[in-house]
Amino acid sequence: MNFRMHRYILGRLSEVFAGLLLLPLLVALLYREGRTIVFPYLITGLISLVCGFFLSRKKPPKRKLYRRDGLIIVAVAWIFFALMGALPLLMTHEVASLIDGFFEMASGFTTTGSTIFTDVELLSRATLFWRSLAHLVGGMGVLVFALAIIPGIGAESTQLMKAEVPGPTFGKIKSSTRESARVLYLIYLGMTAILVLLLLFGGMDLFDALIHAFGAAGTGGFSNKNLSVGAFHSSYIEIVLALGMLAFGINFNLYYYFLLTKGKKWPRSEELNWYLAIVALATLGIGANILPQYLQRGESWPTALKDSFFNVSSIITTTGFGTVDFVKWPLFSHIILLLLMFCGACAGSTGGGLKVARIVIGSKTAVNGARQSWDPKRTLPLRFDGEVMEHSALRKVFAYFFVYIGLFFLFMLPVSLDCGSFDLAFSAVAATYNNIGPGLALIGPRGNYAFFSPFSKFVLSLAMITGRLELYPMLALCTLPSAAAAERHLRRGRKE
Amino acid sequence: MNFRMHRYILGRLSEVFAGLLLLPLLVALLYREGRTIVFPYLITGLISLVCGFFLSRKKPPKRKLYRRDGLIIVAVAWIFFALMGALPLLMTHEVASLIDGFFEMASGFTTTGSTIFTDVELLSRATLFWRSLAHLVGGMGVLVFALAIIPGIGAESTQLMKAEVPGPTFGKIKSSTRESARVLYLIYLGMTAILVLLLLFGGMDLFDALIHAFGAAGTGGFSNKNLSVGAFHSSYIEIVLALGMLAFGINFNLYYYFLLTKGKKWPRSEELNWYLAIVALATLGIGANILPQYLQRGESWPTALKDSFFNVSSIITTTGFGTVDFVKWPLFSHIILLLLMFCGACAGSTGGGLKVARIVIGSKTAVNGARQSWDPKRTLPLRFDGEVMEHSALRKVFAYFFVYIGLFFLFMLPVSLDCGSFDLAFSAVAATYNNIGPGLALIGPRGNYAFFSPFSKFVLSLAMITGRLELYPMLALCTLPSAAAAERHLRRGRKE
Repeated sequence: MNFRMHRYILGRLSEVFAGLLLLPLLVALLYREGRTIVFPYLITGLISLVCGFFLSRKKPPKRKLYRRDGLIIVAVAWIFFALMGALPLLMTHEVASLIDGFFEMASGFTTTGSTIFTDVELLSRATLFWRSLAHLVGGMGVLVFALAIIPGIGAESTQLMKAEVPGPTFGKIKSSTRESARVLYLIYLGMTAILVLLLLFGGMDLFDALIHAFGAAGTGGFSNKNLSVGAFHSSYIEIVLALGMLAFGINFNLYYYFLLTKGKKWPRSEELNWYLAIVALATLGIGANILPQYLQRGESWPTALKDSFFNVSSIITTTGFGTVDFVKWPLFSHIILLLLMFCGACAGSTGGGLKVARIVIGSKTAVNGARQSWDPKRTLPLRFDGEVMEHSALRKVFAYFFVYIGLFFLFMLPVSLDCGSFDLAFSAVAATYNNIGPGLALIGPRGNYAFFSPFSKFVLSLAMITGRLELYPMLALCTLPSAAAAERHLRRGRKE
Repeated sequence: MNFRMHRYILGRLSEVFAGLLLLPLLVALLYREGRTIVFPYLITGLISLVCGFFLSRKKPPKRKLYRRDGLIIVAVAWIFFALMGALPLLMTHEVASLIDGFFEMASGFTTTGSTIFTDVELLSRATLFWRSLAHLVGGMGVLVFALAIIPGIGAESTQLMKAEVPGPTFGKIKSSTRESARVLYLIYLGMTAILVLLLLFGGMDLFDALIHAFGAAGTGGFSNKNLSVGAFHSSYIEIVLALGMLAFGINFNLYYYFLLTKGKKWPRSEELNWYLAIVALATLGIGANILPQYLQRGESWPTALKDSFFNVSSIITTTGFGTVDFVKWPLFSHIILLLLMFCGACAGSTGGGLKVARIVIGSKTAVNGARQSWDPKRTLPLRFDGEVMEHSALRKVFAYFFVYIGLFFLFMLPVSLDCGSFDLAFSAVAATYNNIGPGLALIGPRGNYAFFSPFSKFVLSLAMITGRLELYPMLALCTLPSAAAAERHLRRGRKE
């Protein structure tokens, strides 16, 4: 463990963070929100600048980082960002307690989109922008972003990127080098810009367009309207956002590859095909299931299909934008949505959840298992993207499933202590752990997380970060004490 | 595929089935229940005898059976038993429809213990006995039983046993030969007899003792009282049954081995240790969680602990006996019980669920995965019962998990179509698929499955059989049409 290097990197990140705070500050000034809003952002910026300066004052002699270093730094960085991000909200008195702020900003950076605000329309523009900016930065990864712009951290970055980039990297390019990180970020920002333009074209004002584009890009889902996207009553906007979310749920390595070939060749991706197939199937399934309700209310079947498509896209990409209150939909639709929550988007996208790739590999394992049960002689290799997967790779995927399930219930048990109903506790954890945002019951698209106890809010915040970082960084963090002890022991050994 | 052999074996089974029906008939005569009860059992017995005669009239020339034959025969046999078993209930007019009878007897043979009767105390003695006899026979396996007593099916039995004996056979003895089947059945019946004696000693009358011993032995859970075991208001009986259920949840190969060594040596079993550890932990966890409720009602902590222990034992062994209405317990306890529902008892026991062995292997995979995530260099072998498991064995376990989860939702979707709430649909499938019986909400220990639509009852019945047979036989059955087509094609080929 290279603690000096941890400290140094955290320092540099803190400086970057200070830079980020300039943007909401700018918004606050532009909209003349007065010192009660301006100062909190200014002060927080200065605090993190000072922290950054002291932490990264002296460059560590030994710069080498191991995998575990990477995991721990990433985990610490994300908790740090959520905590620091909460300070302005606390100082503007827009949140009542630090834990509320922590929940809200963890939800922001992890692109979850669960809110503790009962009425977001009362929030200052700066805060609304800050929450959504967190989505944009968190979507591609806080460190990936930082490393793309920080000078002086070169080779070490690999471990950090590996630890933060979501999804098993089946992609053709492993986005673990600085250059690729830069390119990926440019693609990401470019796509976001296009989305902003499309939204402006649909009649949104610039601020709304930015907020919702950030929400879609990071697959986060914060809105500045209580009715979320539903507030705009525009099919055009809904369809643009639905397609936008889908696009950001695709593995960015595919876009990268597409650019490398100068747009000549779109790479073959089995995961993508499944992803689109699942979306199509779920849209039709839910559409058919809600159609009677819609016809009763005198609405047409295209409306039902559109609402179905929007919500499927919003849930599978783990964005969590809402147009209608799907809590009112029949149970069958709920279960499909719940399955989509766990399925999640493609590996290497900004989306959360288990990732389609893992689901596909799991399903193929199941099919092989069944086949083998009736002819045990045959050995069935498991192919993904046309290549046979070896045991070691498969075991990684299986291990991930079991860790995922284990942690899910580990989060659910404490939450259940102050939860009335099973589906509330279950969908609260499902919605935060998978970085979606809204769940079922009281926390549906029209609901919020305000009523949870501070303890539950804290647990759910950890669930968000754990889910966004794909479990292992947070687990590695838990081993920090023992690792530190071992370190001290070693050092003492050297002295003697 | 050897369809002639399928027919033949089904015929012999049908004859055995006729023999089984003599017992409830005897009960009906002993308790002088009149012809309305006597005749249905007599007639059904005759019908199955005639079926048996015609099906097994001519011995097939080719006797060889492949794995798939075994799986399909087992699946067909269980459906056949549930259907035939329903006839007397239908003829006595104790059930309104065949589907209700099918549900009840599938629940009986699969040792699930879910009932569609709103008041079991109105049932005839013969029917009560018949339901519970199904538990006893189904517990160790309908075919294992049949093969242990049918002459003339020797070597072929192996495939059938393999297909029916529950749990991944990690045990030291694979109970796939006729002799071991006989021994296992003797151990099983011996333990049941001991349980009967203990219950008689506790003041139960013979009939009640038999019913509840059968329920515990098969880990089924049918009772002849509406309040289940709670009706006896006896801590002695509750503790005896709790321990009894636990004992029947242990891998019978261990008892076998214990006997082989003439009681000198109890085999080391990792699964057993985990099983007992889980029971202890869950008992304490729930005990602590329900204690406040109990103290409020002026009850002592030993009562809370006893109720917790009884219900933990009842749920983890997938028996489903009830003493108190745990639906009234807090959510935390519900979730622990729900986890136990999926965990299930030991492999090679009469219990259902995923089996502790699989859970342990899954957990170890998770721990290894986490460890590997921070030192990727290290390769961590997975040990079970002290031996390193190879990839092929592991993959079987993983495949089982994925098939299990997939089928779970496949059953849940149709049920959700006529279910109001998520936890009802979820726990109904969980309770039937894992062969437990009572679920949460409306189908708790005090509830029943009467209100489900015939369609849902049918789906849930299939869920029971699929769960009891460990998934693959029912899946193999689905491939029957294609297999039959291939067969016809071959035969045509030969003719030309």
